Formats: sequence, C-alpha cells, structure tokens
Amino acid sequence: IVTVSAAAFQVDRGNYRHFMAKEIHEQPEVIGHTLAHYLDLTAGCIRLPVTPSFDWASLDRLSIVACGTAYYAGLVAKYWFERLARLPVEIDVASEFRYREPPLPKNGLALFVSQSGETADTLAGLRYCKAHGQHVAAVVNVPTSSIAREADVVFPTLAGPEIGVASTKAFTCQLAVLASLAVAAGRARGHLGIDDEKRLVRALGDLPGLVVKTLRLEPRIVRLAREIAKVEDVLYLGRGSSYPIALEGALKLKEISYIHAEGYAAGELKHGPIALIDEVMPVIVIAPFDAIFEKTVSNMQEVAARGGRIILFTDSRGAAAASVPTLETIVLPDMPSEIAPLVYAVPVQMLAYHTAVLMGTDVDQPRNLAKSVTVE
Amino acid sequence: IVTVSAAAFQVDRGNYRHFMAKEIHEQPEVIGHTLAHYLDLTAGCIRLPVTPSFDWASLDRLSIVACGTAYYAGLVAKYWFERLARLPVEIDVASEFRYREPPLPKNGLALFVSQSGETADTLAGLRYCKAHGQHVAAVVNVPTSSIAREADVVFPTLAGPEIGVASTKAFTCQLAVLASLAVAAGRARGHLGIDDEKRLVRALGDLPGLVVKTLRLEPRIVRLAREIAKVEDVLYLGRGSSYPIALEGALKLKEISYIHAEGYAAGELKHGPIALIDEVMPVIVIAPFDAIFEKTVSNMQEVAARGGRIILFTDSRGAAAASVPTLETIVLPDMPSEIAPLVYAVPVQMLAYHTAVLMGTDVDQPRNLAKSVTVE
Repeated sequence: IVTVSAAAFQVDRGNYRHFMAKEIHEQPEVIGHTLAHYLDLTAGCIRLPVTPSFDWASLDRLSIVACGTAYYAGLVAKYWFERLARLPVEIDVASEFRYREPPLPKNGLALFVSQSGETADTLAGLRYCKAHGQHVAAVVNVPTSSIAREADVVFPTLAGPEIGVASTKAFTCQLAVLASLAVAAGRARGHLGIDDEKRLVRALGDLPGLVVKTLRLEPRIVRLAREIAKVEDVLYLGRGSSYPIALEGALKLKEISYIHAEGYAAGELKHGPIALIDEVMPVIVIAPFDAIFEKTVSNMQEVAARGGRIILFTDSRGAAAASVPTLETIVLPDMPSEIAPLVYAVPVQMLAYHTAVLMGTDVDQPRNLAKSVTVE
Repeated sequence: IVTVSAAAFQVDRGNYRHFMAKEIHEQPEVIGHTLAHYLDLTAGCIRLPVTPSFDWASLDRLSIVACGTAYYAGLVAKYWFERLARLPVEIDVASEFRYREPPLPKNGLALFVSQSGETADTLAGLRYCKAHGQHVAAVVNVPTSSIAREADVVFPTLAGPEIGVASTKAFTCQLAVLASLAVAAGRARGHLGIDDEKRLVRALGDLPGLVVKTLRLEPRIVRLAREIAKVEDVLYLGRGSSYPIALEGALKLKEISYIHAEGYAAGELKHGPIALIDEVMPVIVIAPFDAIFEKTVSNMQEVAARGGRIILFTDSRGAAAASVPTLETIVLPDMPSEIAPLVYAVPVQMLAYHTAVLMGTDVDQPRNLAKSVTVE
C-alpha cells in the first residue's frame, strides 16, 4: 500500500462552498495541465507521455470499458476514435462486459477509464482482457491505483485529487486524454494528415480558454437552476458526441439533486420518451452547431409542438439557426465541433450543482453514493 | 405501392378492451407460428426459412441497428450471438449509427430489426451498410416493406399486424427469430455441437407453453399495477440479457402510462441512480436464477438497505435464494436461462398495460407517439 500525501495538493475548498464548485472551476487549469503532458503546442503535434506497448496502425478494434461518468467519457471517445482514426470501437459498462464473456479480436486494444483506478468491475474487466491476449491501456487519475499497476500502459489524467462524489474535473481531463489518444491513433493509422493534427492540437490547446469563457455563464445557469429546482423530472437530449454529454448531464443532476433526469439520444425521442413530454418537464438539449444540428432542431420542433419546455445549450450559429421557441437558450463560445463535448460538459455540471444547492442537498456527499465503487 | 389487405388477418380487438391486450395474449400463438418457420422440432435443429447470402463461419463482426423496442431486441441478440456463436456484435440505435460514419469490417454482416420495415433511420443505416460492402439482413414483420425489399436476406417475424402503438408481440417474435439465428450461427461457427442445438431448439419449442403459463400471472400483475399507478417514477434493473428487458419494461411503461420509468444495468446502480432510491419509487428487478443472479441480489440488498421498494420478477429458485425483503415477488416458470428474455418480456408488458388502463390513458394511441417512425 502506497500512501499518497493529499497535503501535497491543495485539498481544501478554498473560497468555495463545496468541493464540487471548486473542482468545476479548476477545470481550465487541470485540463491545461493534463494537455501539457499530451500536446506539443509549439510543434503542433501530439506527444504522448508514454510510448504505447502496441501499434495503433495494426489494431483491429478498441474495446472501452468503464462505469458511470467514466463510461460516458469512453462513449465520447468512441465517436472520436471512429471518426478521427477509423478504428472500430466497442464500448460497454464494466459490470456487463465482465460477465458476458465477450469475444475479443486478435489485435485488440482494451482501454479502461477510471478516476480512482480502483473501480471493482473495471478492474475485473481489465483482468479478463489481459487473460484474453488484449493490449491493455488505462486512463486513470490515481497513478498508484490497481488499474494503473495492472495495465500495460497508463495514460494519466492530471486532475489532482477529486473530493466531490460527483465527478467533474476528472471527467473533462479523461476527455482531454482520450481526444489526444484519438488524434495520435488517427495520425498513426494514416487517417489524419499533419495539417489535421496541427488543427486539432490547436483546438485542444484552446480548451482552457474556452472553459474559462464558459464558466462565465454561471450567473445565467444559476437563474436557470431556479427553474430546474422546481421540477421532478428532466429529459436531456443530444446527438453524436453530444449524446454522451446529455447522459452525463442527466447523471450529474440525478446524483446530487435527486431529480429524476434521464439522457436520451435525440433520434430515439420519437420511439418512446416523447410520450413523457408535457408543459412541465424541461427538455435540455445539447446541440452545438455541427453537421447534425438541423436533425436535433427537428427533434426540438417535435418537443415544442407538444408544448414542451426547451432549454438549449448551443453556440451563436446554433442560436441563430434554431427556429424553435425555447424557455432559455444558453450560448457557448464558438469552437471546432471535435472539442465541443469537453466544453459542453461544463454548463451541465454547473446546472446540476446550482440546482442541488438551491434544493439544499448534501452536494459533496450525496445520499447513497460513494466516491469510488471498490466492491462489485 | 403494394396494398396489403388487413382483412386477411383478424384485425379487430376480439374480446379485448384494447389491441395491446389482444396482442399481448396472442404471443403464445404468434411466437409458435414464427418458430415453426425456423425450427425443425422433430429433428431438433434450426431450419432457416431462407438460405443466407453469407457464411456465418467467415463473419468477423455483426452490426445490429434498430430503434426503440426493436433496438432492445437487438441488444438481447448481442448477448446471444456473443455467447452462443462467439461472434462479436456491435449494436447502435439507428439515428446514431447512420450519422457517425462507423468504420465497418471486411467480412461484416449488418442486421436491421424493424416491425414496420419502414423506420426511416433504420433504412438509412441499411443503405449506409450496403454502400460499404456489408452483407445486409433484416428481421421485419412486414415482408413488403422498404427494409425487406432492400435487404440481401429477410428473416420474417410472423406476428401478424400489430395495431397497438406500443410494440409487444412484434418484440417477442423478433426475439424468437434472433435466438434462432444465434443458434444457427453458433452451429455454423463450431461453437455449438449437435447436442447443444438439440437442447436449445427444445427450449425454444417450449416457449409458447411458457408464455401461456406466464400470462396466467395476470391477476397478480393487475394488483401490482394498482401500486405502480400511484407513483411518478420507477426504476427497472437487470443484468446480462435481462438488462435489455429492464430497458424494454421501462420504455413500455413510459410510452403508455407516461410514468417516468428508466431502465438501468443493475451493476451501474451504484454509479449514480442509487441516489434516487427512497421509500416511494418502486425498483423493478428482472432476475431469473442464472449465473449472475447473486450479483443482482447484491444490488437489491443495496436498494433494500436504503428503504427502497423492490418488485422482483424471478423463478422459483430465484425466489428461494433472494434473501431480500420485497414489496412483491412474481414467480415465473423455471426455464433455461437462454430463453428467459422472451418470457420475462411478457409480465413487464402486462404491468405497463394494466397500469395505463388504471390511469385512464389512451393505451392503443398514447399521446405524441406514432406506430412507425417513417420520417427522421
């Protein structure tokens, strides 16, 4: 057992009322700190902190395994790896993956994502993959953890200790690492050229500044939280890489406010959840202006036609193009669509936080939850 | 345009108050009718109604694409194909699959599941896969549909016309076809021997009788529905191939009763949704006594420890082994675990139906929903 001195980091709340608020606001710094270990901004290229034990180019498939919020980070990464590196990705929650005896490919990489590095089901999934001849990589925040020790290669997040039970900065740092890995894989597999890499590295380098700008939306989010604190159910919708952010937004609200929030792929709306739409339940839509924006607009129109109350997180182009009445439209900075999931994670964290504060729940220690799930 | 005379089938409600009730009760008959086209019960083997245009043994991967309830049928099939045929399966909702430009394998089969065969996003996914060199198969209920016409090979369900907007008999018939295909694939790929096939064919042949026995639980389900009709939120939990049934149970309740029901993989409970547990919200657990039963029991214990109200669907061995106080335990017949998803679908359909009837909603035409989603 290695004891890491928490005092080496600043683990007090500073001027914040809760650790969660502090951790949300630390994100520009820790995302920048993490990216500094993965990007060479001067050269405009990815520079991984460790040399992988495998060759990206020869991989047949990537399996991503995680739980909870880390699973949603993995789901964003699925979109990135498939789009940027044309690497087929299978993703599953660890508690399902480990028991369903999945057939694994010959040249497969298995990637495990965990803040604590001690998540029991994720660790069991790792051991299954190792026993079945997979290359094993981990994205963890605690470098001395079991998952870090047992993986062939560890890609660390440098989020610092996360004390709030609801993960915030660990999630966005996981996304920063996973985006860097997807770009590295895209280059190695010949799907990204040197100019693509330069453009994406520059976009990743802009993240801390974009998150700073997004955090300035907090007063508007506080006003919005007053509406959310009154309701008992919320639906979050998104498409593409905004879909995992809808899931994460719903999970965050659920965890700390105990409001029954649910995330859905926007295209599935008409296959069931649209029956829930009424004039009470807010529908929160995560939709940066991207290639699938207009498809999400048509889902918003369906919600609006049934009297639903829409809250839209988008950018200036999206706000101009969305021809739908909303209860509230929150305009984030413009940015390349590849990095949007990282930035759009921030307002949904703030919304969950302020809703919970208004409702008087124990934000840093929500009922029934533990910080890391180290038993099955 | 081919006009199919609905009068060729008996499309009236018979003695039932709603089409949905009639269709739930038709299941023994239509599952048997469907299976008669896939099984040779005398020889104890699978006999597919069409010869596939591909070789199961040479497939590298199966991609299953569908929407809504058909997607959950596909999710059950993922467990079956991976377990019985060691064929890696990727599954996605059609609205995500079609826009994320998924990389597809060289020897890949893409399988599309749709009751109507006209689901717009599913059809678009089919065309993407065809354009990218995949073998294309479809499981549809309407043999004259667009999806049936454009697929290389069609595996029909013989559920007859489904009028209720909330799918019931089409779902279980999809499962019957998918189970037959998984056994055929397992045999062709050498993972199932002739005795395994015999055993599984016998189990599938027992399905109509098992569904008849399960339908007899209706008076108990009606009593249970009186409890559910009082609440505003319900959580459904399951592991393994019971996880999609938990999702389907939640979807059914949502669609016709407008209660906010959500399905979750039981192992994910501690990663978020456990925060919702209180003394009001029922937690419905789908858990036949199988290899992962005790893992689900430990999740039930967590719910019970927080005062949660548990409703357990299990079998006699599960009822004896579950050392957890429940609000209600519904005991289904004993059966081989492979076919359990098909049978456990029935009580969650009945529960949604009777809850909606008690609440006075328009069961066959729930608000906001269309029977088939033929626009994007």
